[in-house]
Amino acid sequence: MVMMTKAEYLASLNDGRRIFADGEEIKDLTTHPQFATSLELVGDGYDRHHRPGRGACGPYFSIPHSREELKELLETLLGWDMVTVTTSQGLLALLTAAARMRSAHPEYAKRIEDYFDHCKDNDLRCVQAITDAKGDRTVAPGKQEDPDVYTRIVERRSDGIVVRGAKLHISSASISHELVVMPTKKMKPGEEDWAVACAIPVNAPGVRIVNTNYAPRDRHEDFPHSSRHNMPEGFVLLDDVFVPNERVFLAGETDHSATFAHSLGLWERLGGTAHLVEIGDTLVGLAQLIAESNGTQRISHIREKIAEMVIYATLVRAGLEAAIANAEPSPEGWYFPSELFTNAAKHFGAAEFSHMVRHLHDIGGGSIVTAPSIADLENEEVGEQIKKYMHTVDGVDGEYRTRLFHAIRDYTADAFGGWQLVTMIQSGGGLYAQRLVSRKHYDMDKAKALALEVVNGPKG
Amino acid sequence: MVMMTKAEYLASLNDGRRIFADGEEIKDLTTHPQFATSLELVGDGYDRHHRPGRGACGPYFSIPHSREELKELLETLLGWDMVTVTTSQGLLALLTAAARMRSAHPEYAKRIEDYFDHCKDNDLRCVQAITDAKGDRTVAPGKQEDPDVYTRIVERRSDGIVVRGAKLHISSASISHELVVMPTKKMKPGEEDWAVACAIPVNAPGVRIVNTNYAPRDRHEDFPHSSRHNMPEGFVLLDDVFVPNERVFLAGETDHSATFAHSLGLWERLGGTAHLVEIGDTLVGLAQLIAESNGTQRISHIREKIAEMVIYATLVRAGLEAAIANAEPSPEGWYFPSELFTNAAKHFGAAEFSHMVRHLHDIGGGSIVTAPSIADLENEEVGEQIKKYMHTVDGVDGEYRTRLFHAIRDYTADAFGGWQLVTMIQSGGGLYAQRLVSRKHYDMDKAKALALEVVNGPKG
Amino acid sequence: MVMMTKAEYLASLNDGRRIFADGEEIKDLTTHPQFATSLELVGDGYDRHHRPGRGACGPYFSIPHSREELKELLETLLGWDMVTVTTSQGLLALLTAAARMRSAHPEYAKRIEDYFDHCKDNDLRCVQAITDAKGDRTVAPGKQEDPDVYTRIVERRSDGIVVRGAKLHISSASISHELVVMPTKKMKPGEEDWAVACAIPVNAPGVRIVNTNYAPRDRHEDFPHSSRHNMPEGFVLLDDVFVPNERVFLAGETDHSATFAHSLGLWERLGGTAHLVEIGDTLVGLAQLIAESNGTQRISHIREKIAEMVIYATLVRAGLEAAIANAEPSPEGWYFPSELFTNAAKHFGAAEFSHMVRHLHDIGGGSIVTAPSIADLENEEVGEQIKKYMHTVDGVDGEYRTRLFHAIRDYTADAFGGWQLVTMIQSGGGLYAQRLVSRKHYDMDKAKALALEVVNGPKG
Amino acid sequence: MVMMTKAEYLASLNDGRRIFADGEEIKDLTTHPQFATSLELVGDGYDRHHRPGRGACGPYFSIPHSREELKELLETLLGWDMVTVTTSQGLLALLTAAARMRSAHPEYAKRIEDYFDHCKDNDLRCVQAITDAKGDRTVAPGKQEDPDVYTRIVERRSDGIVVRGAKLHISSASISHELVVMPTKKMKPGEEDWAVACAIPVNAPGVRIVNTNYAPRDRHEDFPHSSRHNMPEGFVLLDDVFVPNERVFLAGETDHSATFAHSLGLWERLGGTAHLVEIGDTLVGLAQLIAESNGTQRISHIREKIAEMVIYATLVRAGLEAAIANAEPSPEGWYFPSELFTNAAKHFGAAEFSHMVRHLHDIGGGSIVTAPSIADLENEEVGEQIKKYMHTVDGVDGEYRTRLFHAIRDYTADAFGGWQLVTMIQSGGGLYAQRLVSRKHYDMDKAKALALEVVNGPKG
Repeated sequence: MVMMTKAEYLASLNDGRRIFADGEEIKDLTTHPQFATSLELVGDGYDRHHRPGRGACGPYFSIPHSREELKELLETLLGWDMVTVTTSQGLLALLTAAARMRSAHPEYAKRIEDYFDHCKDNDLRCVQAITDAKGDRTVAPGKQEDPDVYTRIVERRSDGIVVRGAKLHISSASISHELVVMPTKKMKPGEEDWAVACAIPVNAPGVRIVNTNYAPRDRHEDFPHSSRHNMPEGFVLLDDVFVPNERVFLAGETDHSATFAHSLGLWERLGGTAHLVEIGDTLVGLAQLIAESNGTQRISHIREKIAEMVIYATLVRAGLEAAIANAEPSPEGWYFPSELFTNAAKHFGAAEFSHMVRHLHDIGGGSIVTAPSIADLENEEVGEQIKKYMHTVDGVDGEYRTRLFHAIRDYTADAFGGWQLVTMIQSGGGLYAQRLVSRKHYDMDKAKALALEVVNGPKG
Repeated sequence: MVMMTKAEYLASLNDGRRIFADGEEIKDLTTHPQFATSLELVGDGYDRHHRPGRGACGPYFSIPHSREELKELLETLLGWDMVTVTTSQGLLALLTAAARMRSAHPEYAKRIEDYFDHCKDNDLRCVQAITDAKGDRTVAPGKQEDPDVYTRIVERRSDGIVVRGAKLHISSASISHELVVMPTKKMKPGEEDWAVACAIPVNAPGVRIVNTNYAPRDRHEDFPHSSRHNMPEGFVLLDDVFVPNERVFLAGETDHSATFAHSLGLWERLGGTAHLVEIGDTLVGLAQLIAESNGTQRISHIREKIAEMVIYATLVRAGLEAAIANAEPSPEGWYFPSELFTNAAKHFGAAEFSHMVRHLHDIGGGSIVTAPSIADLENEEVGEQIKKYMHTVDGVDGEYRTRLFHAIRDYTADAFGGWQLVTMIQSGGGLYAQRLVSRKHYDMDKAKALALEVVNGPKG
Repeated sequence: MVMMTKAEYLASLNDGRRIFADGEEIKDLTTHPQFATSLELVGDGYDRHHRPGRGACGPYFSIPHSREELKELLETLLGWDMVTVTTSQGLLALLTAAARMRSAHPEYAKRIEDYFDHCKDNDLRCVQAITDAKGDRTVAPGKQEDPDVYTRIVERRSDGIVVRGAKLHISSASISHELVVMPTKKMKPGEEDWAVACAIPVNAPGVRIVNTNYAPRDRHEDFPHSSRHNMPEGFVLLDDVFVPNERVFLAGETDHSATFAHSLGLWERLGGTAHLVEIGDTLVGLAQLIAESNGTQRISHIREKIAEMVIYATLVRAGLEAAIANAEPSPEGWYFPSELFTNAAKHFGAAEFSHMVRHLHDIGGGSIVTAPSIADLENEEVGEQIKKYMHTVDGVDGEYRTRLFHAIRDYTADAFGGWQLVTMIQSGGGLYAQRLVSRKHYDMDKAKALALEVVNGPKG
Repeated sequence: MVMMTKAEYLASLNDGRRIFADGEEIKDLTTHPQFATSLELVGDGYDRHHRPGRGACGPYFSIPHSREELKELLETLLGWDMVTVTTSQGLLALLTAAARMRSAHPEYAKRIEDYFDHCKDNDLRCVQAITDAKGDRTVAPGKQEDPDVYTRIVERRSDGIVVRGAKLHISSASISHELVVMPTKKMKPGEEDWAVACAIPVNAPGVRIVNTNYAPRDRHEDFPHSSRHNMPEGFVLLDDVFVPNERVFLAGETDHSATFAHSLGLWERLGGTAHLVEIGDTLVGLAQLIAESNGTQRISHIREKIAEMVIYATLVRAGLEAAIANAEPSPEGWYFPSELFTNAAKHFGAAEFSHMVRHLHDIGGGSIVTAPSIADLENEEVGEQIKKYMHTVDGVDGEYRTRLFHAIRDYTADAFGGWQLVTMIQSGGGLYAQRLVSRKHYDMDKAKALALEVVNGPKG
């Protein structure tokens, strides 16, 4: 067990992986401008956690054995880069799946635990590759015209399997080491070839990843957030990739084909909710700062909107706390968060997010999109004039206020902002899935008993 | 210290109190039909808790000394009648005020603790009398044309004070023993006469209470909830009522004039949120039962609405749990719930309530208001026909379904339902107050720091 | 052609009809307290419109032949009692069905026109009887365990048909002359017996109607609206009722089984929207009056809420105006309103209604449900005191303000209010149906063309 | 009176104007990449409308003299470029102001009409310059520390005035000919120097404009909308600009200082609503196209969301139609739209916009932000693979679907989308102003009369 440094991490990516972006294959990731920020973030994460020598491992490889440990994990991960968060959440999801399928398929549970150790021993970063291309949504996976639109086993060999398909929306895939492949939905009898979960190194033959990215191409100062925080989104092509048996976690057992997606959903939504708490507070902060900068923070309708944002952020936080406080242990003693509270909180936070952004835009004003560029502030002829007119009250200089407008635009109404607007709704499987799971884990019998008391009066 | 039985409680109300309703003074409360249900509920509460002998006292006189005790209290009180709940919450509010004003006014804090013991020793029921008539809302209490529209001290004597005014919306006042009078809002210097808090027995000379009530006058079977659960709402007139010094908790100290209202706000909203959790579950239960009765529980848009109701109920619960989990002790070691989470949860629950009722009505259908009377079910000519046509699927007989419609109407769209719709918004001081308090107790500095990271990148 | 007076109308109800309420058969409608108000309203409508002599007929029997006539009709009907409105809208719906099925079934179209003349000639009042009992919602009408849960033809004779079933939510059925029976939904081949539309006199043998009603039983002064405006809701039993051929409008032609429901939906939603415009303005008026009475009308958050209510009322009005301005003529030259705008306006008005009521309750305050009874105002001991404390600002006396609170409670949070809350969602077929029809009549091709311009740029 | 061609228009911009962007002064607008699209759009507008010879003028200089002409104008302008729309709406706003101030200040009304003719005769393009820098929002214009934060008269000369200040959010200022300057809000007595309206050529000495712009810098194919539709946003500096008397429309008359803003508000919101109708339909179209592309268009919850979008688009359209149908003529016979309906429709459209975008994102899926670049589709190694996996159902090829995702991202969740999200809320003066004006023009007396009927029953 040994930890990597930033330099070792960057070197590790030079492993023959095949990465594409903007229409071309990228020969050296570490020198490509579109990947610079994300590699910097992940690399800094390695350096920050690094402890030399054998036997060391990062806290992102720990499994919570109590509600307190789970709570601590959720707080700690807010300081990590996204790839490290994904590694932690994804491996916990995999262990959750192991716990849930252990009695039926002990061999798979064992392989998952071994794989967890493998990642931990080598300080690897993993991403979950779940969403399939899906083809015609009204047709079952096994009945599609093109059988590859759901990832599938195309060959079964004595030493492993060969898989083909595509996995979409795989954030950070290109800068990670491992793809944890799992079925996008429940497979039915007859769809054994599509019931496949396994781990694949990013540089395995047959893997190619096409990337997109909201990182700004220029004027980085006008994009204070997205220039510092961005990750490539990967469209992962799996072209007859061989997976050895020890990395196969499901290969035809349809009864557990949805176990991975459910487990991942739980942890993704929990992590998402933890980030939402921070996002909610950030939105409140931006609203309060811009109101103070505009000198409008005491106007009644501005205060009302900020109060609504405060209540939003607080309720998401309450949901997260309840999800942790109601966590339950698996037979292994691993603590998994409450499905009910996790899903309810995530749904609320995601569903109301665009309304909160509307409040922020309503409070901020048109300069969110019309403020002159930071470069203009430095122009010797007009720079001082812009600062003069962007200045409002004592203590708020024109440059700070201009930068604040750019931050709000970048965070909520441009590249990163748009990405956040969409992923807010889609991450963790979409609002619909969150409603479904909330409903499933709710104590409906108790609710019906309460309702019957309204009909019939209290029971005996 | 001794506890009362139901019979003793009923007898205790024959104490000369002056109660009015429907235009007339009521000579004997215990035989008046409009008070029958509420006296039954409160009386049963006495009998249920009664333990004979000296030294016994009800759990509603306990002060939580840990988060666990606070949690237990909140769960337990759901089983109590409203007067007992009000007694517990109101006295805790009074103790909260005592804790908050102890350093400035130790004498008042002492009197409050003595008063708490007095109530406990005699197993009394207390209500909080806070809302003043208020007159012209644009004019300060001390500047009103009629100085009585805010309750005030009209005479200061060596042995006590004399107060005059009216207190509105005082639920259950007529069937309780004690009125805990407190200022409706912060008083300013010059308004010392209106800065008055004290305890007044309901039967004190000068007290008269006019009552209104949503209890059904007839057809009780068509009102399954409101016929079993109703409390009189009191319009309390204080006509030069003498209060001895030991029951005076504030008499001119304007610096602490809002302390009572804030303390009461906290406990009322906490108790309100605890009930909201139950109400939320009840609404889900009613929705699920009527959907199952109609045979529509598997229709997609019905399921979606119920899932939204589930998320609503779950988030209110999360807010309550967080309010308790984040409770903090006073110097006395008494645990008070988190202002932030309490207010955010109460606001959300109240603000979204009418939307949840809309979902229930949307799911239920027009029979909520058009179902024939229960009496019609028993009519020998048409009763069987009604049952025939109200029957839907196996296991759902027509009478049960008819009763379910009446229960939904009564609970959400008639006398009790309307009362609930209004008080949901108004209780605990109204939505506006809840936004205000949420904003006040939110960690705005942290939010601004997070926002500044978006502008400037991470600190240091 | 001759018109009836109130006296003649009341006499006409003594025709052997069989009416039930509160568990008993009512022998004389005109002396029963629960029907007094509605008979008064309908009777006054007769007297107000009455012109003596042959050849006269009410304006509620006119068919709009231009957009201007349609607009005038919609404005005029707001002054009519509900039964007269229903008669007008229902017969226009029937004529709409006639126009739509004329080419396929000219005989039925002819019978409908004859029936229209019959009603007009005798100044009759008609209600539409559409909603069936429906039994198990997951089972088709022809497959139900009890075949009567959808109204059906049980016998076909040379001179007519015999029908059996129940029709629910039939407002005012008991005080009208005619029931216009129509299928509740589209029937499929094999369900010919359930594809039945016809007209049945209320006093036809086999018809029995069970009534429910939100009319106050006592304290009428505390119910200023519902004591003046209420109609019985009828649960109509059709027990092997014979219908002669000339009153049969459909008897097995499943292709047109939904034509009646669609036509009625259009006119019900149009009439409903016209009333919604008035209801919207009424809610704004109540909000403004109570704000002025409380002296809060200049407070920022109160003004904001009233402004939102103003926008609501204005948008419903805009929708109604657009529905009329976009009306199209049938081949007969009859003008039918726009399906698209009618449904969109009705949906918006209904869906947002509970939110507007919430605003009103938020603005009004707790006295909406706790104000003393009007009788208490007249009590010589406490009456003046209540008025003193309910008084606020110059020009607002305590009695007026108390009555205003009762009006708001009655209109939005009690018997009538609850009825309105539910029927707002359910009338015209429910929100779901309105969404469906809006979608169906929207110009989707144009929308897709606009969207494609975003993808590909402007066409050529 | 003569019309310009595109070439003449482009040449006309070479007039000494001083334009800045990205930190530098732009020497030749017509060759700068950031202005290319907008110049193309405006230039094409010139060519499309051009008629040679004297006496010709564009339809954007017509004044509606009837509701029909107003309706036609609103339909026609949807086909114009934004600068031409602004010219038409702005000049109509100016004429509205003229009509409203004619009796008090006939000389100004005359100058405005002359100015209108000047623009028309020379086929000029004008923008309105209204929003001031505003400094400290809690301080009146005349009391600011820096008096220039509201544009003001710094010198009054016999032949004109000299003005100083800044005007923000001035779309297209740099590519127009004329700035119509007007006060941002009502000025009070003592603030005469800030009560200034006038017309200033863009190339007048002392005018400098700093620009920002969401036009894509590269990968134009990934930005199908914003690469074709973008306008520079101008931050206009007025540094002691001389304005001759004939172009001064207000110079100290505070009684009419708000007349311009109100007039502009009306026309901006009307034009905004007209565009919103198209935007609403476009959103519906995008939702339907992507649902069909995903093969999800028949799924219940997808259909429900699209139906809600349909109702949204339809109600905005109803509001626009009602604003026009209720237009009223000025004494001059010019038709001005209804303030009430215009503001209500604009408010609704803007307030619900982010919710509609949420629906679109919910329907579309994560590929909105993760779809590979169009360039990747052309990569010979991965292009075909991407198309294979982006393909879904017959008739939907992978490239079309990829382009559709990019269009949705660009239109609602990136550069243009973010701009639209913010300006939707802010344009026409913000939601708050729209509520204020709606409230002001609503018939409150009628609403109160209706409400009093609930309290007291019908009058007389």
